[in-house]
Amino acid sequence: MKFCSHCGSSDLEFRVPEGDTLKRYVCAACSTIHYQNPKVVVGCLPVWEGSVLLCKRAIEPRLGLWTLPAGFLENGETLTAGALRETFEEANARVEIDELYTTISLPHISQIYVMFRARLLDLDFGPGPESLDVRLFREDDIPWSDLAFRTITRTLRNYFLDRKLGAFPVHLSALDKRPVRDPSLLAAG
Amino acid sequence: MKFCSHCGSSDLEFRVPEGDTLKRYVCAACSTIHYQNPKVVVGCLPVWEGSVLLCKRAIEPRLGLWTLPAGFLENGETLTAGALRETFEEANARVEIDELYTTISLPHISQIYVMFRARLLDLDFGPGPESLDVRLFREDDIPWSDLAFRTITRTLRNYFLDRKLGAFPVHLSALDKRPVRDPSLLAAG
Repeated sequence: MKFCSHCGSSDLEFRVPEGDTLKRYVCAACSTIHYQNPKVVVGCLPVWEGSVLLCKRAIEPRLGLWTLPAGFLENGETLTAGALRETFEEANARVEIDELYTTISLPHISQIYVMFRARLLDLDFGPGPESLDVRLFREDDIPWSDLAFRTITRTLRNYFLDRKLGAFPVHLSALDKRPVRDPSLLAAG
Repeated sequence: MKFCSHCGSSDLEFRVPEGDTLKRYVCAACSTIHYQNPKVVVGCLPVWEGSVLLCKRAIEPRLGLWTLPAGFLENGETLTAGALRETFEEANARVEIDELYTTISLPHISQIYVMFRARLLDLDFGPGPESLDVRLFREDDIPWSDLAFRTITRTLRNYFLDRKLGAFPVHLSALDKRPVRDPSLLAAG
């Protein structure tokens, strides 16, 4: 942020406003305080006869790696509407949302992931503009070392473990920016 | 948004960018696309020996009405860190977060409420700068007709019902902008 989006002034200060506790961009010309808040990434884990639908990314970051359909929640959307939209945009797939499943905070990039379990309604799917490929994977075929994000690895690991245990509680967790250097740990999410 | 926060130009267009599906503010001068996304409101339901901690609001909106401690999640925060911070800021209260409890989408104002159940750790609480009063309420004394937000009413209703049922599942729901005109419905959330 270099200019005030309210008055156009370049006289922005990064300071704690009166009565506040955190630094914000404050316009010295018109006094507007510019709050910046985390974004929500919403998506789902679509299942068909025990297999899971994954999308191969056609865009950066992580071009060429596999992910569950997910993306930024938009203004005016509910969480489930966002998950349905992203699934349709990235995989041309129609799903029925089952339940909230994983909620993962990523404070180092100010994102909150919210993932639902979902049932794929038919096999008429295929890559949208942001995907190179869309496929169903059985548990044994999941490309663990080619998954795009740790949030996706964690959500899939939870799912296959919970399926064995026979219950799908909501999983709340956080991931920090610590890089994972050991591929076996990467696979573990 | 009247000026581009990247280059200061006032030549902003509100249109669908190429390859996108939704209207955004796009700067005609420097081509920056200004995405706007929902905000997360995070808070908790602090319990002490069966009573619930509520805060009487000292600020608009809903000045003078009662609420659970909650507020906007900040950049760099996890969901639970935000809930702890808001509880301390609004009620000077220390809690231990139990579990994720209600997740409520408010698409008409582009907010997502995320509320946790929590245990109040001691009775050394009191109003912060944004509260006029902070009190513990037994179920029979909850000021149902003086609650600040429908999200709070819904979270409290869920809590007292679930407590009778003996289980606290995560509740996922949405609220639209439909005004509630009948006070008995207001109390029902």
